[in-house]
Amino acid sequence: MGIINWSAARRTLVAALLAVVAASGADVVSAEDAKLNALPSWNATPRKEAILDFVSRVTKEGGPDFVQPEERIAVFDNDGTLWAEQPMYFQLAFAIDRVAALAPEHPDWEKTPPFEDIIKGDLKAVAASGEHGLLEIIAATHAGMTTDKFNDIVDGWIATAEHPRFHKLYTQLVYQPMLELLAYLRANGFKTFIVSGGGVEFMRSFADKVYGIPPEQVIGSAGVVKFEMSPDGKPELMKEAKIEFIDDGPGKPVGINRMIGRQPIFAFGNSDGDLQMLQYTAAGRGARFMGLVHHTDAVREWAYDRASHVGKLDKALDEATAKGWTVVDMKTDWDVVFPFEQ
Amino acid sequence: MGIINWSAARRTLVAALLAVVAASGADVVSAEDAKLNALPSWNATPRKEAILDFVSRVTKEGGPDFVQPEERIAVFDNDGTLWAEQPMYFQLAFAIDRVAALAPEHPDWEKTPPFEDIIKGDLKAVAASGEHGLLEIIAATHAGMTTDKFNDIVDGWIATAEHPRFHKLYTQLVYQPMLELLAYLRANGFKTFIVSGGGVEFMRSFADKVYGIPPEQVIGSAGVVKFEMSPDGKPELMKEAKIEFIDDGPGKPVGINRMIGRQPIFAFGNSDGDLQMLQYTAAGRGARFMGLVHHTDAVREWAYDRASHVGKLDKALDEATAKGWTVVDMKTDWDVVFPFEQ
Repeated sequence: MGIINWSAARRTLVAALLAVVAASGADVVSAEDAKLNALPSWNATPRKEAILDFVSRVTKEGGPDFVQPEERIAVFDNDGTLWAEQPMYFQLAFAIDRVAALAPEHPDWEKTPPFEDIIKGDLKAVAASGEHGLLEIIAATHAGMTTDKFNDIVDGWIATAEHPRFHKLYTQLVYQPMLELLAYLRANGFKTFIVSGGGVEFMRSFADKVYGIPPEQVIGSAGVVKFEMSPDGKPELMKEAKIEFIDDGPGKPVGINRMIGRQPIFAFGNSDGDLQMLQYTAAGRGARFMGLVHHTDAVREWAYDRASHVGKLDKALDEATAKGWTVVDMKTDWDVVFPFEQ
Repeated sequence: MGIINWSAARRTLVAALLAVVAASGADVVSAEDAKLNALPSWNATPRKEAILDFVSRVTKEGGPDFVQPEERIAVFDNDGTLWAEQPMYFQLAFAIDRVAALAPEHPDWEKTPPFEDIIKGDLKAVAASGEHGLLEIIAATHAGMTTDKFNDIVDGWIATAEHPRFHKLYTQLVYQPMLELLAYLRANGFKTFIVSGGGVEFMRSFADKVYGIPPEQVIGSAGVVKFEMSPDGKPELMKEAKIEFIDDGPGKPVGINRMIGRQPIFAFGNSDGDLQMLQYTAAGRGARFMGLVHHTDAVREWAYDRASHVGKLDKALDEATAKGWTVVDMKTDWDVVFPFEQ
């Protein structure tokens, strides 16, 4: 099967077009028809209804919940919300592949944790090296080169690396229902942003192609970058082995304030790292939508929440339940998980 | 006179509409007519011609210099490029007004430089307190409160404070030719950004209303912001007395990479603090436009360059001359400087 699943792409497109037609007030397709045809990979459950109802309320001119288009800011976590995150964050899989590729140039790594653990394939030992080990891996694989060089490396990996369980490209492990949701929101005048703990440059390499989210609408963690003149007088941006900003947990509202400067009216996450972004969104005046993807489908995807190391969902699940936020039950609510299933 | 100069607003609007009509290929107004009517406050000099020629080349589908709309990123410095910056950066005027307003609550300031110098009106002594003094002023006036509170204070100042020479609101001291240029670029599919050493929250308070640039397209210097829960459980963003990022000089390309993630094809500045942004823009492949506003009009505005403390233009002027960048001679090239002249 090719990278593009045409029937999935067509479904997304048709749903978006119908929404546009409905929004323009044309008679050929009624708003009710468009609503029925929207989000085709979502089963008809209260979660789908909550999304459609919210969008309908904030876009109804003259209605009590109407929101001007420029204020329709929607923010999405990436790992576990727009694409999968098991058995490890995909960016960590990238870093591990890079360590393996670079190992021949670093004979010392054979006796240096966490690199020796990666070379031996002992991922438990890698995990045990903790934050310090992770930062060493990031420094060795994400720094000491220009942004252009790094982007080229990521592009190459994204185009070829396969997920160990599904044997698909990582970009095929995006959630079809969320692709439809992104397109539906944009068709209704929303501006969609990614707000993720992932590295901003890593995500930008595929966000536009895969999600339709341009680079300037991707907010993520970032390393320090320095402007330099190369010996032959070419301006370059050099990636340094130092973290500048962690866009996770309380960092998410800070990143939103810094990069967007408006409070979102719509936010979707899947883990405790998204709690503060959801709280910040909920605190705004007027209609607000807060959503969580609950990974409940061990057959088609994975089932995990409170006890998971990756994408732990515990406090945010309690708060969502207490406050009536929308908690998507993947198993029940999604007719299709990945585009390649269709 | 009210805040809005309707004849100026109409000129800007008409120019933008003509550009749109031309871009759509309609027969009623030829592209040549639209070009003649574009940028009405710019005199017919080689600088105006350089702008029109560049826009025409990058928007001509099938032409050798055509650039896809999503890649038409235009970046503008703010102080001295979009609005005036004499006799001091307007944000410093704001900070000084704030010190005066807060002085009754801080009796100790009467004997503490640089605050006592401000209270006495001795701005030379304030300037002599250097970077340390400036950071103390910023800390006292820009921190220790939520972003919401700060934004309210800025809104109040922007709506009432008057410039000492012109006795106009600071937002009336924007350059009419640059307003027309922003509108013209947007009408031709460009996305316009501010990239300034000024504080990002300060600029966002007026950028949308005055320049038509929404908050998410304003890049600036920023203090550290922390997410907190207020005692009554309300999420808040607290501004701390610590600088996080200086968006000036080599910081400008870094900020562009961080926030936009694409290399601009069009950049306008006015001082040495814009040099690296212009170099970074020039280094991209394909057609590029680099522009500088040269302040040469002591009668209508101010005349300053190499020897100025504020907005010093020295190295960037040499490089612009050497590389054939567009250097706007304010006196010769601009028929109107400020909207209120019309």
